[in-house]
Amino acid sequence: MLDRTAILTLSCPNRPGIVAAVSTLLFEAGCNILDAQQFDDTETGRFFMRVLFNRLEDGQQPTAIAASVDELAKRFGMAFTLRERGAKKRVMLLVSKFDHCLADLLYRWRIGELSMEITGIVSNHGRDSIASTDIGDLPFHHLPVTRQTKMEQETEVWRLVQETKTDLVVLARYMQILSDGFSAKLLGRCINIHHSFLPGFKGAKPYHQAHERGVKLIGATAHYVTPDLDEGPIIEQDVERISHRDTPDDLVRKGRDIERRVLARAVLHHLEDRVILNGKKTVVFTD
Amino acid sequence: MLDRTAILTLSCPNRPGIVAAVSTLLFEAGCNILDAQQFDDTETGRFFMRVLFNRLEDGQQPTAIAASVDELAKRFGMAFTLRERGAKKRVMLLVSKFDHCLADLLYRWRIGELSMEITGIVSNHGRDSIASTDIGDLPFHHLPVTRQTKMEQETEVWRLVQETKTDLVVLARYMQILSDGFSAKLLGRCINIHHSFLPGFKGAKPYHQAHERGVKLIGATAHYVTPDLDEGPIIEQDVERISHRDTPDDLVRKGRDIERRVLARAVLHHLEDRVILNGKKTVVFTD
Amino acid sequence: MLDRTAILTLSCPNRPGIVAAVSTLLFEAGCNILDAQQFDDTETGRFFMRVLFNRLEDGQQPTAIAASVDELAKRFGMAFTLRERGAKKRVMLLVSKFDHCLADLLYRWRIGELSMEITGIVSNHGRDSIASTDIGDLPFHHLPVTRQTKMEQETEVWRLVQETKTDLVVLARYMQILSDGFSAKLLGRCINIHHSFLPGFKGAKPYHQAHERGVKLIGATAHYVTPDLDEGPIIEQDVERISHRDTPDDLVRKGRDIERRVLARAVLHHLEDRVILNGKKTVVFTD
Amino acid sequence: MLDRTAILTLSCPNRPGIVAAVSTLLFEAGCNILDAQQFDDTETGRFFMRVLFNRLEDGQQPTAIAASVDELAKRFGMAFTLRERGAKKRVMLLVSKFDHCLADLLYRWRIGELSMEITGIVSNHGRDSIASTDIGDLPFHHLPVTRQTKMEQETEVWRLVQETKTDLVVLARYMQILSDGFSAKLLGRCINIHHSFLPGFKGAKPYHQAHERGVKLIGATAHYVTPDLDEGPIIEQDVERISHRDTPDDLVRKGRDIERRVLARAVLHHLEDRVILNGKKTVVFTD
Repeated sequence: MLDRTAILTLSCPNRPGIVAAVSTLLFEAGCNILDAQQFDDTETGRFFMRVLFNRLEDGQQPTAIAASVDELAKRFGMAFTLRERGAKKRVMLLVSKFDHCLADLLYRWRIGELSMEITGIVSNHGRDSIASTDIGDLPFHHLPVTRQTKMEQETEVWRLVQETKTDLVVLARYMQILSDGFSAKLLGRCINIHHSFLPGFKGAKPYHQAHERGVKLIGATAHYVTPDLDEGPIIEQDVERISHRDTPDDLVRKGRDIERRVLARAVLHHLEDRVILNGKKTVVFTD
Repeated sequence: MLDRTAILTLSCPNRPGIVAAVSTLLFEAGCNILDAQQFDDTETGRFFMRVLFNRLEDGQQPTAIAASVDELAKRFGMAFTLRERGAKKRVMLLVSKFDHCLADLLYRWRIGELSMEITGIVSNHGRDSIASTDIGDLPFHHLPVTRQTKMEQETEVWRLVQETKTDLVVLARYMQILSDGFSAKLLGRCINIHHSFLPGFKGAKPYHQAHERGVKLIGATAHYVTPDLDEGPIIEQDVERISHRDTPDDLVRKGRDIERRVLARAVLHHLEDRVILNGKKTVVFTD
Repeated sequence: MLDRTAILTLSCPNRPGIVAAVSTLLFEAGCNILDAQQFDDTETGRFFMRVLFNRLEDGQQPTAIAASVDELAKRFGMAFTLRERGAKKRVMLLVSKFDHCLADLLYRWRIGELSMEITGIVSNHGRDSIASTDIGDLPFHHLPVTRQTKMEQETEVWRLVQETKTDLVVLARYMQILSDGFSAKLLGRCINIHHSFLPGFKGAKPYHQAHERGVKLIGATAHYVTPDLDEGPIIEQDVERISHRDTPDDLVRKGRDIERRVLARAVLHHLEDRVILNGKKTVVFTD
Repeated sequence: MLDRTAILTLSCPNRPGIVAAVSTLLFEAGCNILDAQQFDDTETGRFFMRVLFNRLEDGQQPTAIAASVDELAKRFGMAFTLRERGAKKRVMLLVSKFDHCLADLLYRWRIGELSMEITGIVSNHGRDSIASTDIGDLPFHHLPVTRQTKMEQETEVWRLVQETKTDLVVLARYMQILSDGFSAKLLGRCINIHHSFLPGFKGAKPYHQAHERGVKLIGATAHYVTPDLDEGPIIEQDVERISHRDTPDDLVRKGRDIERRVLARAVLHHLEDRVILNGKKTVVFTD
């Protein structure tokens, strides 16, 4: 059975009449709004909207309304995306030695929780580094990197991204900092999981920093990658309680659970077009 | 400065065009939508919406559009409410011996967090039962109750509710079960705080039941009162972690914190017209 | 390198001098206490203790003190366990069609987070039911069950438990109710994950019950299996926030995350001898 | 009825035999251990312990064992505290314009949840700044402060602390930074509530910083005051979820709830001698 449902997201300068224009356009095109969420950022004067809708009678795909939306977008100065819900995004997974996030994403993909096409797994380490994870027949690319070869390695990753028509790159505990240029190319479509509750404990070894400082909660942060390290727009965060008894190793263990659920939620939100960039922040239309 | 903002809530059988009709009505009346949330209950086929909007140019109150909304409501079979945001709801607080919820609500009211008019405090115990709470000049009504006088007492409370034009009755740890008839009169405008994570531990002494059962989390539930005891539509719930070390007294202490924040959130949601009844459940359009 | 660390757990009627007796015994045997936790249940008058200790000088295993502990136990009427920390418990995993808990436990085992020997996987469905999970070379036993063959099937499981010297049976979403007799045999060493926040929503389809009732949080409960269905001693529970937007399918999806982390914590606590039965409840000496 | 219960806390370099020595001392003195918790910091080699015990037969106070403990302390190089549980600590509350933490602490004190003697309330603003809070007959000291008079004002606060034999100073949203010298005098007995999840958002206006950065959780931190601003040993932290919809004002409102429960827990832990300083960190023996 065809999924005749589509997702429209848009953002534009706020002014009266946007909701009326969008909903009237959809109604007159024979569509039914299943869910709609909006947000007015009164600080920046920008308006954000996500609409889930289906097409009622005829055999046309809901995306057949693209031309009308395009016209509307010009009138309101909108940036928009329009996508059939059933059209899966293409996702590339980057990983280094810790594979708990990778294993978790793959399991959620196998049971249908994350609806996506995986275009490949890239690691700067060999396949035996992620031996605990069953990657099945997925393409695996071992692209080692040193300071000297970083440019070449990133060029190769970028080639893979283009060749496989990858929509989203997920840094699933990929322990390399992307260069400014590469970050810029992937703006808004590269999600990283940082193993701390940002902005606390930026940089390396955040669990050791947290232990050293004696905090009572540790966390993880999923964010879009930008040239500004650990400063990208935050999509999702979560924490767990710890105590003085927890060694750095305990924090690493407890952190794995937080990291994988935070990253999985961020990826899910992105796949469902729930996240819209708002300058250095995000608008997340959660369920 | 006048708050020229209004809140419209509505529910009706779902059908295409509702959002378009509502947003077009507002646009043509010179109003600007500040926030809108909607929900389609695909099980019952009902549609729910909350719109926050203001009036742009002329000196009219946004509620001046009431007639147009009324007409629209007839067309779609809508139940609706329309209210100026600045118009405070009138709230009566009922309490017995434990006054932590009462003290908490009064503090939030004093600092402006809960925007409401308090029409009075009613207790089945004397004023010295709530000696830890500063009730200032608020009218206090001591209405004792026994099994024999229950009908008379409820009649008296009802008289007070009517006389004071009370919109909402809050049972802030009022340890009396309202009769079926009284519950029916207050349907959708009487909030109770139950000191357990319903549906677990219904009835009396829930913390003792929780201790007896050895659960690892305790909770509280704010719900609308219905003739069906502890079965009313749930507005808000929360929990906290406990351990084998916690005595029933510890649970009572920890529970006070959960109760007061759960009740305060439920009252806040109600005051802001964020809660719409949906049969035995609620739709809560949270912030 | 040998792990010369041992774990002693004990419970007995409370009386003065227990801690002194235990700690003096360990000190005089040349042992050093690394961690100790105790609990006096003032309701039942029972005392519970867990001691982690190592042996300092000679080449003996810390369990060489077993005879002295045994003598002490007789004096105080103690039940006790004494185990080298490095001696892995033997665990059998039972599963039906939903394999998220199984996949999660296996991953934690592979990366060394759960220190155990897996003696086998038993399912009442065939191996392709858990196709999303890589079980590697682990023995898989397909033991189908009908109402008529339940006795025979349980007898076969029991034979496997004995043959493989299994210490702990984990019902990782095994959707069969164990018979009273089988439950009794496994008392204190069979952990089940129930997909609700018990005691709410006992029995079948708890997520559908939760949706029906309109609760604002859903949860999961790990407990020891007893003949009393869904009434066994609770080891661990957790919850997550939901909203009116969540369909039963959403609850099932969100619930998977809660189930696997609650079960993993309960299994970890059991493997580290942190859980002691206390009648119908548990004492859990967490980290 | 006399509360014949005492609390012993101690810390010292770790070595075998400490628990045996302490528990034997108590046993031989006719005392019964009700609760004991210990912690070995393997990084620093220090040992920490908290023992709750009572005296069984004769009429002596449990603190009669002070001399024996003192002797033991010399042998092991222990720092220790020994206190009858019923002997209330004397607490001074400092506040500026936001009185939600003050109101909350006073309510908990009135209903007996926080067992303490309040020696006074000090504010750098006048009494009408905290008009929403009923301070009853508690001594109120208005001690305004400017950059020029800071030294004199702190001298006056210190005089009050000494004169009233204050054990603990609580900065309940006191918006002045204590001078290094004053912080040093109050080391380990002055608790501050910082309105962020430290180490994120140090310094001024943390909720505005949090809004600016677009985090998805906000928090609060209770810590001992040290000359190092916002770097003191952390006692307790907590967080709550926020969204893109939350304005800075919403964060301030939601933050009030976090601040008051985090501060109340930290004060409770301190009053019950559950917190022991461990360099720049704390050991917190929670319930």
